[in-house]
Amino acid sequence: MTKKGIKIATIGGGSSYTPELMEGFIKRYDELPISEIWLVDIEAGKEKLEIVGAMAKRMWEASPYDVDVHLTLNREEALKDADFVTTQFRVGLLDARVKDERIPLSYGMMGQETNGAGGMFKAFRTIPVILDIVEDMKRLCPNAWLINFTNPAGMVTEAIVRYGKWDKVMGLCNVPVSAMMKEPGMLDTTLDNLIYKFAGLNHFHWHKVTKDTGEDVTLEIIDKMFSQDAGIPVNIHNVPFFKDQLVQMKMIPCGYHRYYYREQEMLESAINEYNTIGTRAQQVKETEAELFELYKDPKLDHKPEQLAKRGGAHYSDAACETIASIYANKGTHIVVSTKNNGAVPDLDPDCVVEVSAFVGAAGALPIAYGSLEPAERGWLQAMKNMELVTIEAAVTGNYGLALQAFTINPLVRAGEDAKKIMDELFIAHKDYLPNFADTIERLEKEGVTIKDAVASELA
Amino acid sequence: MTKKGIKIATIGGGSSYTPELMEGFIKRYDELPISEIWLVDIEAGKEKLEIVGAMAKRMWEASPYDVDVHLTLNREEALKDADFVTTQFRVGLLDARVKDERIPLSYGMMGQETNGAGGMFKAFRTIPVILDIVEDMKRLCPNAWLINFTNPAGMVTEAIVRYGKWDKVMGLCNVPVSAMMKEPGMLDTTLDNLIYKFAGLNHFHWHKVTKDTGEDVTLEIIDKMFSQDAGIPVNIHNVPFFKDQLVQMKMIPCGYHRYYYREQEMLESAINEYNTIGTRAQQVKETEAELFELYKDPKLDHKPEQLAKRGGAHYSDAACETIASIYANKGTHIVVSTKNNGAVPDLDPDCVVEVSAFVGAAGALPIAYGSLEPAERGWLQAMKNMELVTIEAAVTGNYGLALQAFTINPLVRAGEDAKKIMDELFIAHKDYLPNFADTIERLEKEGVTIKDAVASELA
Amino acid sequence: MTKKGIKIATIGGGSSYTPELMEGFIKRYDELPISEIWLVDIEAGKEKLEIVGAMAKRMWEASPYDVDVHLTLNREEALKDADFVTTQFRVGLLDARVKDERIPLSYGMMGQETNGAGGMFKAFRTIPVILDIVEDMKRLCPNAWLINFTNPAGMVTEAIVRYGKWDKVMGLCNVPVSAMMKEPGMLDTTLDNLIYKFAGLNHFHWHKVTKDTGEDVTLEIIDKMFSQDAGIPVNIHNVPFFKDQLVQMKMIPCGYHRYYYREQEMLESAINEYNTIGTRAQQVKETEAELFELYKDPKLDHKPEQLAKRGGAHYSDAACETIASIYANKGTHIVVSTKNNGAVPDLDPDCVVEVSAFVGAAGALPIAYGSLEPAERGWLQAMKNMELVTIEAAVTGNYGLALQAFTINPLVRAGEDAKKIMDELFIAHKDYLPNFADTIERLEKEGVTIKDAVASELA
Amino acid sequence: MTKKGIKIATIGGGSSYTPELMEGFIKRYDELPISEIWLVDIEAGKEKLEIVGAMAKRMWEASPYDVDVHLTLNREEALKDADFVTTQFRVGLLDARVKDERIPLSYGMMGQETNGAGGMFKAFRTIPVILDIVEDMKRLCPNAWLINFTNPAGMVTEAIVRYGKWDKVMGLCNVPVSAMMKEPGMLDTTLDNLIYKFAGLNHFHWHKVTKDTGEDVTLEIIDKMFSQDAGIPVNIHNVPFFKDQLVQMKMIPCGYHRYYYREQEMLESAINEYNTIGTRAQQVKETEAELFELYKDPKLDHKPEQLAKRGGAHYSDAACETIASIYANKGTHIVVSTKNNGAVPDLDPDCVVEVSAFVGAAGALPIAYGSLEPAERGWLQAMKNMELVTIEAAVTGNYGLALQAFTINPLVRAGEDAKKIMDELFIAHKDYLPNFADTIERLEKEGVTIKDAVASELA
Repeated sequence: MTKKGIKIATIGGGSSYTPELMEGFIKRYDELPISEIWLVDIEAGKEKLEIVGAMAKRMWEASPYDVDVHLTLNREEALKDADFVTTQFRVGLLDARVKDERIPLSYGMMGQETNGAGGMFKAFRTIPVILDIVEDMKRLCPNAWLINFTNPAGMVTEAIVRYGKWDKVMGLCNVPVSAMMKEPGMLDTTLDNLIYKFAGLNHFHWHKVTKDTGEDVTLEIIDKMFSQDAGIPVNIHNVPFFKDQLVQMKMIPCGYHRYYYREQEMLESAINEYNTIGTRAQQVKETEAELFELYKDPKLDHKPEQLAKRGGAHYSDAACETIASIYANKGTHIVVSTKNNGAVPDLDPDCVVEVSAFVGAAGALPIAYGSLEPAERGWLQAMKNMELVTIEAAVTGNYGLALQAFTINPLVRAGEDAKKIMDELFIAHKDYLPNFADTIERLEKEGVTIKDAVASELA
Repeated sequence: MTKKGIKIATIGGGSSYTPELMEGFIKRYDELPISEIWLVDIEAGKEKLEIVGAMAKRMWEASPYDVDVHLTLNREEALKDADFVTTQFRVGLLDARVKDERIPLSYGMMGQETNGAGGMFKAFRTIPVILDIVEDMKRLCPNAWLINFTNPAGMVTEAIVRYGKWDKVMGLCNVPVSAMMKEPGMLDTTLDNLIYKFAGLNHFHWHKVTKDTGEDVTLEIIDKMFSQDAGIPVNIHNVPFFKDQLVQMKMIPCGYHRYYYREQEMLESAINEYNTIGTRAQQVKETEAELFELYKDPKLDHKPEQLAKRGGAHYSDAACETIASIYANKGTHIVVSTKNNGAVPDLDPDCVVEVSAFVGAAGALPIAYGSLEPAERGWLQAMKNMELVTIEAAVTGNYGLALQAFTINPLVRAGEDAKKIMDELFIAHKDYLPNFADTIERLEKEGVTIKDAVASELA
Repeated sequence: MTKKGIKIATIGGGSSYTPELMEGFIKRYDELPISEIWLVDIEAGKEKLEIVGAMAKRMWEASPYDVDVHLTLNREEALKDADFVTTQFRVGLLDARVKDERIPLSYGMMGQETNGAGGMFKAFRTIPVILDIVEDMKRLCPNAWLINFTNPAGMVTEAIVRYGKWDKVMGLCNVPVSAMMKEPGMLDTTLDNLIYKFAGLNHFHWHKVTKDTGEDVTLEIIDKMFSQDAGIPVNIHNVPFFKDQLVQMKMIPCGYHRYYYREQEMLESAINEYNTIGTRAQQVKETEAELFELYKDPKLDHKPEQLAKRGGAHYSDAACETIASIYANKGTHIVVSTKNNGAVPDLDPDCVVEVSAFVGAAGALPIAYGSLEPAERGWLQAMKNMELVTIEAAVTGNYGLALQAFTINPLVRAGEDAKKIMDELFIAHKDYLPNFADTIERLEKEGVTIKDAVASELA
Repeated sequence: MTKKGIKIATIGGGSSYTPELMEGFIKRYDELPISEIWLVDIEAGKEKLEIVGAMAKRMWEASPYDVDVHLTLNREEALKDADFVTTQFRVGLLDARVKDERIPLSYGMMGQETNGAGGMFKAFRTIPVILDIVEDMKRLCPNAWLINFTNPAGMVTEAIVRYGKWDKVMGLCNVPVSAMMKEPGMLDTTLDNLIYKFAGLNHFHWHKVTKDTGEDVTLEIIDKMFSQDAGIPVNIHNVPFFKDQLVQMKMIPCGYHRYYYREQEMLESAINEYNTIGTRAQQVKETEAELFELYKDPKLDHKPEQLAKRGGAHYSDAACETIASIYANKGTHIVVSTKNNGAVPDLDPDCVVEVSAFVGAAGALPIAYGSLEPAERGWLQAMKNMELVTIEAAVTGNYGLALQAFTINPLVRAGEDAKKIMDELFIAHKDYLPNFADTIERLEKEGVTIKDAVASELA
């Protein structure tokens, strides 16, 4: 990359997260001297792009730095000669996520927008688009790094590496960041006095912590988790883990493990929200509307406090830190989705894992974590293979593979209802699933329709 | 082993299956010239032992062969210098199985006596006993083969190899036998014209079939399965698989895969039986009572037809064929639980798998099946690791490990109810779980009691 | 395949082995009712083809069976609708082998026509030709089985599977056959009373033997090997193994292991032959000349005794047995080069290994052997990777890869001489190495010439 | 560990390297505030210990720091409550190494004190001693870190982890240090502008280098290696690699790879030295004698320049840096022998590898390197298994295993001479091989004697 005049292209630039991204770049300008930022979006996102784009421009103007912010609907123009490409787009916008969540829940099953039924459909919609972007990058910016935080971040990154044959990519997630922000305080210390080791998959990882005295403090943190608030992401229902289980595993699971370790309570909570205040996506839509109202204020030139409620806080900041670490060869410890290379020896060295890495000019240097104990190993292998089947289904458009993916996903209760959910989701997302056109045509002929009232209103 | 005067010791000799075992030995006498059979049981099974033992003696008397049948409660006497030991005992008898099934179902969860919550407790009860038997064998008959058909056969065999350090063992199951009896007719051919390859774990395996012309007929069988009755074991509810899924996997799953591929319907059916005719164990108790009434008939000297209804039909015959194949070095194709050795390369070479093998004097020569596709691979790995955690919990008596095993078992919905089920099962089986004495003492102090009415009646 | 009118195509039909092949087919006619045999050869082999072809015709005429033997130089005509294709050709004929052996020996290094420097060049010459044949088969006989006994049989089979993407192939070797012919007598028994398990690679495998009483007799055979003649193939110098080593490994190595376990003596012997009676290829040339003199005799209509001296005895008979086992679904135990599928778990499941298999209509069902001990595991892995590098060099024509292959081959002493040997072999075989045309052109420009007098005479 | 009053115990404290170690501690005192250093040696090394111990004391006195240096022959006293234990002892001193080198060379074979025949005997002598030390540590300083630089460092570290069950250990080597000191200058840059990734085994590793601009400069360094001096350790004969080979592998081999990639020339050079100036050990003996003369000078209070000639330069400095990195949680990139954990996925996750790691309070965090290409993978696997067999032979004293290790070692030409070398080495080192007492007694009865004149003089 050129050491001068860094060009950033942000796909999905109209996202409500963009101000956090701008803030992250502004505070790192000294080590990451950006010259231009291109915020790209699609026609349907034009209005949001203009609102948040104007806000972004005000933020840079309020800073001491001279950076050009461009707004465009032309992806090629944005990618041309970019040094870093960030992806934070959402195919079908939040309305699609509402369907991802509500249709499964209308059958009493978890939707879950990353690893559940909803997450699989998010993968089906997103993977063809990201592979298109990768093809564009091969032509327009073949030396650029792709920093992805579009969910399901693990599957998307895997698709980029496996089918896009593009290795200069890291997937990011704010879940490890949140843990590392919360836990040091539980021990009355600060992050720089602790050594973290994460390993697993996106939204399905564990970690261990050592103090700078060499003492393993994982069990101490587990102990505190049961006397304090455990720093759960705001978008996850707060049911505690079983302490006996955590003490036995001697690792700290991520917040999303609640979906697996407390499946019953998570499902009960989701059904309750479905019937009352609306699912997470519906709540987020309100938050987003409020945020965009704020962003319209021509006097606002800094990230508003309210963004923290959005659930994905620190996501964009992690992206900025990653980009700065690559550019300035900082060697920072960051938890990224990257090629395994053996770091998680229970999975194939060539697949993508989410793991502690030292990030610098040579990319991510993942830390070899060692084999997991059987209780975690088997599930991790099941989850990775579920991801692989989902991705293959997205790439091939094969209905049988999609059904296989649904069957093996632990958040889906296999059977007739699962198949109905899947079929309804195909219909609900038909505009965003050209890869499954044949399947959708067949299902429409068979008369499949959407059962959930709210989802059909939205359609 | 000695080529003359074969001695067989059958632990759990009072089982209702014993007549099938006798029949199997009688019809193979020419290749397997047995001189003595020792039927062993425990004090609690004495009455049954005497009834079925008398029946066994009549069967041999009605045959042209001179074989001594001994009945004993002294295991050491039976094992001394045995050539083959078969194990078909049930710790806690059918009453324990009733609890294994009813307690989970009282919370709306699958009990399932082999791979579900019930199966895990069956493993907890059985593994310490089988390891004791192995220790006896090391002293009393160190060259004998152990042929196990006590369920969960896969976990029990794994425990024998891994913790008992005893390699001369094969685990048997009648599920593959049933498939091989049913499917040839679906193709208007006979078994000897087909080549079967099975791979996986006990009650969690798949198979492929080739004709003697070299043509793979797996998809043809799948096709017939959806136009005919698919040969499901009588103890499994008959919900069809999804054809799209089977066509995609190009393998035939075993009957027990319904618990995973049609989880919803299997659970609905089990709840319905729980609320109406009683669970499988309760039905079996009735069948057994009828069988023992028949066995009491001093004129009955052959296996009665009614035994076929029992669910485990062909189990004992498979055991006889296995023993004959070893003794006479027949090289018969038998599906056995045996050390992997690489046959299923997605699992550790040292673990136990259920796989097609050619059985002869050198034991089981497992056929290398090759890697599975991701959709099957991940779940298989999850299941094997669930087995390993369950076994380790049985051996160590560690409560945290038991909770881990429950959490990762796909038939258990993790959460508060799962933990309650587990705790109740510990209480319900307290007489048969010396390995978990500390846990049970703690739970009793905490006031854990059994919720299900029928189970508590039985207690 | 059709059950009537089997068509066999034999590529390299002018080989001196053809009469053994004919004899093998004649004695198995009842189970393998052949209707036509096509012997194919190239222009340079026309005379031999005619001599041995006439002999083949006489053999069938002397039999009670009506089989048409066709001689042709047109490979396509022979392959068209064939049921079985056997390959026994030698690119560059025996003269090429003379160079493979003499050029390395002129530097005091082992040539060795299968796994040594010579074997690598044999692979370089053969692999492009076999991949051409596979492409022809895809068009002309897509359901045929390819039975390869062209050396280096392991590498050639690996190339067929890996680069030819052709799975219906088995590689054959007479080394395991010889062991199974010799060893039973050492125990005063017959083969049908023993159970053999072989595992490894072509010319680099080990085996274990069990008696039909269940007793492992491997150590007993090892013991006899040091009191009797050990049944070494006639083409391998007869230096004994170290007994201490074999007792420790508890397996019987193959004859070719002498090149590794007694490297010093094998090299001394080869150098001695080089300087006196000529290398193996030179001796074989004489034997072949004698054989063809015999074959010219219009009265000879059966395989002459002298063929046994040729070194590859039983090769062709093994091929016939393999074909008959496939066709008649016999399930015979045959040691074949086939896709690993996990049978040798220390190697990738997708690579080709040489292993005990039961051969029938479904092809080879390899027996899972289990992990090897470290002493054998590491070398086996090194050998397999040497094969892979050699094959990749053959396919890509990459000089650096060829040099890598030479460097890692344990029979080559890396350094300046090794590189000279390699360069001279490129020059010596230039007519048969179109894949390395660029390299050869460069070497010629650099003035590389062949040092060995005999080899240059032959050039 | 305690943050105050660090205690260091150095086993083999009488080594000529001790002054470098002292220098390393002195210059890092601010981050590593040592309070006491215990130099331990055995009776036979007492004189050297006193000379170098006095020198060590002078060095600390000349420094601004108050550190107590203790000299002792009582290992327990030194280990008691130590925070760090360093091991740099040599069982049998340099005289043993002379035999390790000369006896193989007397048969025209490489001795090579780390990975060759000599190295295996060094392992045989050293492993029982290091395992004793580990047992002492379990009693006397169970929280200490063991920093080993006794050769063969890879095998010794593996033995500590595998048989000693001690994980707080790192093995160190100066070979990677030398590469990282030399290569930056070849690119006109400094080390902090480069990112190094090493992977493999001790004295058998490769590395890749990336610039802080993200550019992979490995091929650029390879290019320079053929126009400049390549930074070969002074104890390795300077024959160049083949450039074609290195360009193909796209990695830089370590200096010791010359023994494998240029086996011929390395052997010729060693034979030449054997016949003329003496082997490396004999040269080192002279250097050592000179060093100890220098050390006797009561005015010398700093490390003399001449130590750099010794061959192991930077070894001790690397040890000091490692200790400081652990203590001060520095996270420095250091190449260490440590548990693999997947970093080198072609080897078992539980074995010891030599690999780039970030070293801090949590020990070594190894960087996952990813799978190697076949050409390197196979040999690496062969070498690791050779190590494992050698270690097992050392631990069990099994002669057959020792013979296996000799046979599979690529630097040993298997055969009669190899066996003679091995037998002579057993006799030569009999005083230091109690583990092989039975073997040695047998060999003495058989009349094995040492052939090499110099070695027998030394005996």
